[in-house]
Amino acid sequence: MDSTASTSSQSGEISDKHPTVTVDLGQRSYPIEITTAATEAFPASVSKALPDLTHAVLIHDEAVESYAAELQQKLSDIRPSVRVDRVDVPSGEPSKSFQQLQRLLDAMLACGADRRSVVIAVGGGVVGDLAGFAAASFARGIRFVQVPTTLLAMVDSSVGGKTGINLAGGKNMVGAFWQPHLVWIDTQVMNTLPERSFLSGLAEVVKYGVIDDAEFFCDLERDASALVQRQDAVLRQAIERSCQSKARVVNEDERETSGRRAILNYGHTFAHAIEATAGYGTLLHGEAVSIGMQMAASLAIDLGLCEADLLTRQTKLLLDCGLPVRFPDADVQAMLPVMMRDKKVEHGKLRFILPRKLGQVDLVGDVDQANVVKAIHAHR
Amino acid sequence: MDSTASTSSQSGEISDKHPTVTVDLGQRSYPIEITTAATEAFPASVSKALPDLTHAVLIHDEAVESYAAELQQKLSDIRPSVRVDRVDVPSGEPSKSFQQLQRLLDAMLACGADRRSVVIAVGGGVVGDLAGFAAASFARGIRFVQVPTTLLAMVDSSVGGKTGINLAGGKNMVGAFWQPHLVWIDTQVMNTLPERSFLSGLAEVVKYGVIDDAEFFCDLERDASALVQRQDAVLRQAIERSCQSKARVVNEDERETSGRRAILNYGHTFAHAIEATAGYGTLLHGEAVSIGMQMAASLAIDLGLCEADLLTRQTKLLLDCGLPVRFPDADVQAMLPVMMRDKKVEHGKLRFILPRKLGQVDLVGDVDQANVVKAIHAHR
Ligand SMILES: NC(=O)c1ccc[n+]([C@@H]2O[C@H](COP(=O)([O-])OP(=O)(O)OC[C@H]3O[C@@H](n4cnc5c(N)ncnc54)[C@H](O)[C@@H]3O)[C@@H](O)[C@H]2O)c1
Ligand SMILES: NC(=O)c1ccc[n+]([C@@H]2O[C@H](COP(=O)([O-])OP(=O)(O)OC[C@H]3O[C@@H](n4cnc5c(N)ncnc54)[C@H](O)[C@@H]3O)[C@@H](O)[C@H]2O)c1
Ligand SMILES: [Zn+2]
Ligand SMILES: [Zn+2]
Repeated sequence: MDSTASTSSQSGEISDKHPTVTVDLGQRSYPIEITTAATEAFPASVSKALPDLTHAVLIHDEAVESYAAELQQKLSDIRPSVRVDRVDVPSGEPSKSFQQLQRLLDAMLACGADRRSVVIAVGGGVVGDLAGFAAASFARGIRFVQVPTTLLAMVDSSVGGKTGINLAGGKNMVGAFWQPHLVWIDTQVMNTLPERSFLSGLAEVVKYGVIDDAEFFCDLERDASALVQRQDAVLRQAIERSCQSKARVVNEDERETSGRRAILNYGHTFAHAIEATAGYGTLLHGEAVSIGMQMAASLAIDLGLCEADLLTRQTKLLLDCGLPVRFPDADVQAMLPVMMRDKKVEHGKLRFILPRKLGQVDLVGDVDQANVVKAIHAHR
Repeated sequence: MDSTASTSSQSGEISDKHPTVTVDLGQRSYPIEITTAATEAFPASVSKALPDLTHAVLIHDEAVESYAAELQQKLSDIRPSVRVDRVDVPSGEPSKSFQQLQRLLDAMLACGADRRSVVIAVGGGVVGDLAGFAAASFARGIRFVQVPTTLLAMVDSSVGGKTGINLAGGKNMVGAFWQPHLVWIDTQVMNTLPERSFLSGLAEVVKYGVIDDAEFFCDLERDASALVQRQDAVLRQAIERSCQSKARVVNEDERETSGRRAILNYGHTFAHAIEATAGYGTLLHGEAVSIGMQMAASLAIDLGLCEADLLTRQTKLLLDCGLPVRFPDADVQAMLPVMMRDKKVEHGKLRFILPRKLGQVDLVGDVDQANVVKAIHAHR
């Protein structure tokens, strides 16, 4: 057992061979299992989470077809009583559409899915969100398993139960809160993941250090280069700590009603404005989040909410993770109106998730546009 | 206050001017208010159920456009701080489609709906199911109000939180359990409802007497002719008692997990097979349910589960309600395979909701095909 596993197991199951984080939501609680090259163990974990399983529909991104086929094979081999169908989804954000949703639901019905069937979503955030919503709405809700294959999906989108698709007029405007019964993470699947996508996922990892876990932030400072090289044990630990943070926040505010869940949007108000104005495909989401966290930290310092040292350390860590920390093309005049339309705007005043110190953020209202402009300029 | 009102109010609010039934689901509890010609009182009821309302999207069947416009007007007049948008839906079952769902969600976004907006569904079961699912999935779930305008919707589909649309391959295959915050019933809106549709709704009313409320069954025997003539007080009382029965069953099994909710399907296994084989439009749903209840009662008697008298009384009441009690064109050989595909089939054996006595039914498994055939023949 390596060092990662020994520090693990929020669930207290020390006999597990790999780290497990439990998302604690009463009756809707579920484990996140974090493994490397462990496809052999997948059927046992699925059986444990879903003892009465007889039919699964495995929905996967076309980019991970061979991995999905392997999971299907293993599940069918080891549990011949389980029938496993497989449906693929085209890669990319446009698949979070009504068209793909309807196609999936028709396919599920055609392969004989019923209320006891289980959806297994294999892919990045796009397939997780889409297939999760298909599970939430088929027969008014059937069980599902998340098998994330991008770093962003492993540390963020597969955990917490947000599922959905886009409308032409707005991203993630349609969906459901629908918790999985199991999140199965195998870091080996990321061997085929492009460098830029992997590093982009690290931005969300750093985010958890700043918003929730100062000790984790320090560990990341120490381990950044091993992480960038994707060393297994370090990678599993980073995913585990990230999932612990996300699970904690979700536990406090499952359906985004208390406001607590908003802390996960640290850096995101700036990031969304950057993404919306930079032109499609210029920056990956995590890259925009990296720059957005820099702007948010500057804003917090400018407002006297935290020490300048936080920005210094955050800058160094993001750079060590191979992430951009400034956006020279930032168009302030274009960004501001986008930020004003953000959900966190109330009565025309801007609100931001801002750091107080490492591991602690607050929702700060009543922020002046002048300060926002200054924060953007500081990272152009 | 008429006699209906005085026997009312499961919620104990004796000061209410109209009967109110409470659906008791803890935090998700809501009132069903049963009125006649009371549009004036609608804004106050909405305000009580949704004190912080600022934006409503009223989604209505095109057949009730003028009523919907009146509700919109009243709401806007009396609470000028509330913005009310209105979207219509083509009449008929084909509107429970992805196409209409997407159209509604796009329209909601276009008129500025957000997480605090409220959907008001005005129409029969089609619009209630469709608009309810739109509310359940817009921004991962916003609040909604049911304003049923058919008798079937008043006593059945608007109560209990089942929402959804159809797939090409199956009815109600996609949807959500999503409870309304208020059900507002005004019997006057049925003035324009065709006779056959109204009588068809009475089949579900009779159903509640058989499955849950023997006293109500007796009252219906006494009041049938007044009911068929749509006398207001009798009609409100029949709706109230029906809603009380449905609310009771939903309270015991909100998400259809314990099996209790299945008792609402009394007569429906036969009815679905009749509807599927009779050809589209031959029989209305309630007409098929009426015949199906006759077959179920015969089956129960044949199996020695209940007295022959139950069928005699049920037959008379259904006839008094102007409903068909036999289906001469029944094609037994076509009906059986449909019944075998029913959700209640387990291991090839048929299961039925069968009466023990008035007011009490059981789920009976292991029923022989021969008995089923005999029951169908008894009502051809
Ligand atoms: N539900 C939530 O809580 C939540 C949170 C954050 C983001 N999201 C959503 O997640 C989505 C973004 O997720 P994403 O970044 O994973 O994008 P993605 O799913 O589009 O994956 C990125 C790219 O990587 C490819 N890919 C996936 N796994 C691979 C692998 N193992 N090897 C090689 N290529 C692989 C995909 O085909 C795609 O081209 C967005 O739609 C966003 O809205 C949801
Ligand atoms: N959600 C549930 O629990 C539940 C329960 C039972 C049935 N349902 C669903 O309900 C639907 C059937 O409901 P329905 O019988 O109300 O059908 P419906 O909504 O199609 O209405 C029947 C017809 O009456 C018209 N109409 C509605 N109100 C009218 C009025 N006041 N005056 C004149 N015409 C009017 C409609 O335009 C339509 O043509 C089905 O789709 C069924 O699946 C749902
Ligand atoms: Zn993000
Ligand atoms: Zn019915």
